[in-house]
Amino acid sequence: MAIIVQKFGGTSVGDSKKIQNVADRVVQSIKDGDQIVVVVSAMAGVTNQLASFCAGISDLNSESKLAEYDVALSSGEVVTAALLALALQQRGVDAQSLLGWQLPIKTSHSFSKSLVQEIDSELLIRLLDSGITPVIAGFQGVNSDGRVTTLGRGGSDTTAAAISASIKADYCDIYTDVEGVFTADPRLVPLARKIDLLSYQEMLEFADMGAKVLHSRAVQIAMRYDFPIRVMSSFLNALGTTITKHSKNMESPKIIGIAHNKNIVLTDFKFKDYKAMEDLFAEFAENDIHVESINRDTQSFVECIIQLGDIAKVQAILDRSPDITYNIRTDIAIVSIIGFSLKNDTSIFSKVLSSLARDGIEIMSMMSSQIKLSIMVPEPATERAVKILHGLLIC
Amino acid sequence: MAIIVQKFGGTSVGDSKKIQNVADRVVQSIKDGDQIVVVVSAMAGVTNQLASFCAGISDLNSESKLAEYDVALSSGEVVTAALLALALQQRGVDAQSLLGWQLPIKTSHSFSKSLVQEIDSELLIRLLDSGITPVIAGFQGVNSDGRVTTLGRGGSDTTAAAISASIKADYCDIYTDVEGVFTADPRLVPLARKIDLLSYQEMLEFADMGAKVLHSRAVQIAMRYDFPIRVMSSFLNALGTTITKHSKNMESPKIIGIAHNKNIVLTDFKFKDYKAMEDLFAEFAENDIHVESINRDTQSFVECIIQLGDIAKVQAILDRSPDITYNIRTDIAIVSIIGFSLKNDTSIFSKVLSSLARDGIEIMSMMSSQIKLSIMVPEPATERAVKILHGLLIC
Repeated sequence: MAIIVQKFGGTSVGDSKKIQNVADRVVQSIKDGDQIVVVVSAMAGVTNQLASFCAGISDLNSESKLAEYDVALSSGEVVTAALLALALQQRGVDAQSLLGWQLPIKTSHSFSKSLVQEIDSELLIRLLDSGITPVIAGFQGVNSDGRVTTLGRGGSDTTAAAISASIKADYCDIYTDVEGVFTADPRLVPLARKIDLLSYQEMLEFADMGAKVLHSRAVQIAMRYDFPIRVMSSFLNALGTTITKHSKNMESPKIIGIAHNKNIVLTDFKFKDYKAMEDLFAEFAENDIHVESINRDTQSFVECIIQLGDIAKVQAILDRSPDITYNIRTDIAIVSIIGFSLKNDTSIFSKVLSSLARDGIEIMSMMSSQIKLSIMVPEPATERAVKILHGLLIC
Repeated sequence: MAIIVQKFGGTSVGDSKKIQNVADRVVQSIKDGDQIVVVVSAMAGVTNQLASFCAGISDLNSESKLAEYDVALSSGEVVTAALLALALQQRGVDAQSLLGWQLPIKTSHSFSKSLVQEIDSELLIRLLDSGITPVIAGFQGVNSDGRVTTLGRGGSDTTAAAISASIKADYCDIYTDVEGVFTADPRLVPLARKIDLLSYQEMLEFADMGAKVLHSRAVQIAMRYDFPIRVMSSFLNALGTTITKHSKNMESPKIIGIAHNKNIVLTDFKFKDYKAMEDLFAEFAENDIHVESINRDTQSFVECIIQLGDIAKVQAILDRSPDITYNIRTDIAIVSIIGFSLKNDTSIFSKVLSSLARDGIEIMSMMSSQIKLSIMVPEPATERAVKILHGLLIC
C-alpha cells in the first residue's frame, strides 16, 4: 500500500463533469489499495476572474492590499476542494476538505508569493488512519499573524509537493491536461515525444523555461526531500513522466528536449552612477521582482531579462526613478536546448547557429550552463526555432 | 462617536462598481466620526451558483456532505470581504477582511443552518482601537471541530446582529436594495408607504412572512441584546425603517402593514396510527424541517404548512414511509395583516372576508395571533389579495 498525493490542476477540475471524473479516478486509486491525499487547484479561469475583480477595484501596491488579494484568490481552491469532497462522498468515500488554515499550512509572512515553512502532518495522518480521504485546497496557507497567504501562480503544485514531504508520500502525482513532459511543446512540434524519465535537475530546466506542466518550486521540494513526482494526464490512463533523483536510462540521448518561454521581457537600463544601479536592484528585490539574467556591458549600462508578469511593478519603479534611461522589449522569447554537458560541446552551438540562420532567425543572445543552452530570438520566430531545433537535435 | 455595524447585502455588492459605492458610503460614515464595522454578503447570484455546483455533484443528505456544502458556499462572502477591504484601502482607509474562522464566530456543531454561539470581540475591538476598519465575511462561522459552518440563507443579517451584540454597537444598519420596510410590497402595491418605526415584535411578523428585507434571526438577537436595527437602501441617502424596543409613535395606525409569503407548501398526511405521526414529526425535527403550522383534524389526519425550501427533504422522508398517504400543494400563499390587538377585533376579519369574496378570492384558512391575522389564499390570487387588503386597511 503506497501513500500517494494526487494533485489535480485547473483544467482537470474545470467543471462539474470533470470534477466527477477526478472523483472516479481517486476512487479507483483507493480501490487499488493506496492511501490517497488529494490537492486541488481552482476551477480553470476562476483565479484569473478573481484577480481581475481585484484589479478593477484597487492597485496592489502595498502589503495590506496584497493580503486582501490573497484572501480573494484563495477562495477558488476552497470551492474545488469542497466540490471534490462532495463528489467523493457521493461515491461512498469518506472525504473531507481541508483549507490552508485548517491543516495548517504555515507560510512566510509576506503575501502573494509566500513560501511554505511548515506543514503539521498530524491531522492528515489522523484522517488517513481513520480511513478519511483528505482533499486539500492548494495554493494557500496561513502566516504567523493568522492571515491567509497564497503561494503564487502554480502554487498548488508546491502544496502537493510540500504535503508529500510532510507525510513522506511514496509518490506525488501531478494530474494535468497534458500527457507528461515532451521533448518540445507538442502543439508546436507534432513529432515531439513524451519523456518517460527525468532527473530533478533536468525537470527544473524545463519548468523554468515555460514548460507549464509542473512548477519548479514543487520540483525543488521533491529534490530536497527525495520523493518521485509523476506528471500525467487526468484524461488518459497512461503513465506520464516520472521525475526522480536519477534519470536511470544511461543510454538516454544527449539532448533531452527543447523548451521555450515567451513570458519574458528584455530590459536595458542606463544609470547615471553605480549607486543608482544598486538602488534599482535593491528595489527589485524588495518588490520580489525576479531578474532571470543580467548582462552588465559597462559601468552604467545593464541588460536584464525579467518575467512578463512583473512588468507593471518594474514600470512603477522606473516611473519613480527619473534618472534612469531605459528600454523595455516584450517582443522576444527564449528557446532552450536541455541536455547533458552542453557547455563542453561546442559543435552544438555552431550547428544551432547555422540551422537557425538558414531559416532567417536572428540569434539575439545566447547563454549556456552544464545542462542548458538558451537562445534569445525575436518572439514571432519562437515556433519556427523550436521546430527547427527539435528536428535538428532530437528527431 | 457611535459604533455602527453596517451590513451590505448581495445586490448592494453585486459588482465592482457597487462595491466601490459601498466603499464610498463607509468612508463617508468614517468621516462623519463614527467607528464602522462592515459585514458583507456574497455578490448577488454567487451563493445560488455555488449551491447549484454542489447540487450538480451530489445530494446533500448527510452531515458530512452539508459540511462540504458550507465550505463551498462560505467562499462567496470571503471574496466580497476581500474586495471591499481592497476598495477601502484604495480610498486611504486602513481596512482588513475577517473571515468566520479568524474572529472566530463560534457556531453550533451542525452545518448549513448553524446557530451563532459566541463571538470573541477582542480582535474586533483591538482593530477598531488601532483605527482599522474590519470587513467581516457574513453568513459563516466555525464549529468546535474547527470546520466551516454557515448560518443559513439570510445569515449575513444574523452575523451583523451578532457582531453588534458582541461589541455593543449603537446601531446595526442593514443596507439592502429597498428603502426600508413598507406597509406592503411596493412592487405589488404602488401606494404602499415606508414605515419609519417598528417594534422588534412587529418586524418579526414582517420578516417571518416573507418580507425579505431583514432576516428574523437578526431581529431576535437585536431584541435580546436591545440595540436598534436600521434598514435602509444602499443606493439612496435616506433613513429607512428603524426597528427598536418600542414603536414610539403612540398614534400609529392599528394596522401596520400587509405581508405575504409564497414560499410555503400545504401538506396533508394520513397516518395508519398515532405512532406513525410521531415518527414523521421526529424525522422532520431531525432533518431541521420547520413546520410553520399544524392543524390536526382527526387522530390520523394532519394538515401542515412547511417551507418551500424544505420540500425535497420532506419528499425524501415520505418516500421512505410507504404507510403515509399524503398530498402536497404548492399553489398556495399566505397573506398577513400585521397590527395591534387583531384577535380582539372581530370586525376586521369580517371586513377582510367580504372584500376578498367580492373579488372572488377564496379564503382557504385563517390563523390569528395578537398582532397578526394570516389568511391562506390560492397562490395566483396573492397580489390581488395584498392590494385589496392594503386599500381596505391602510390607504
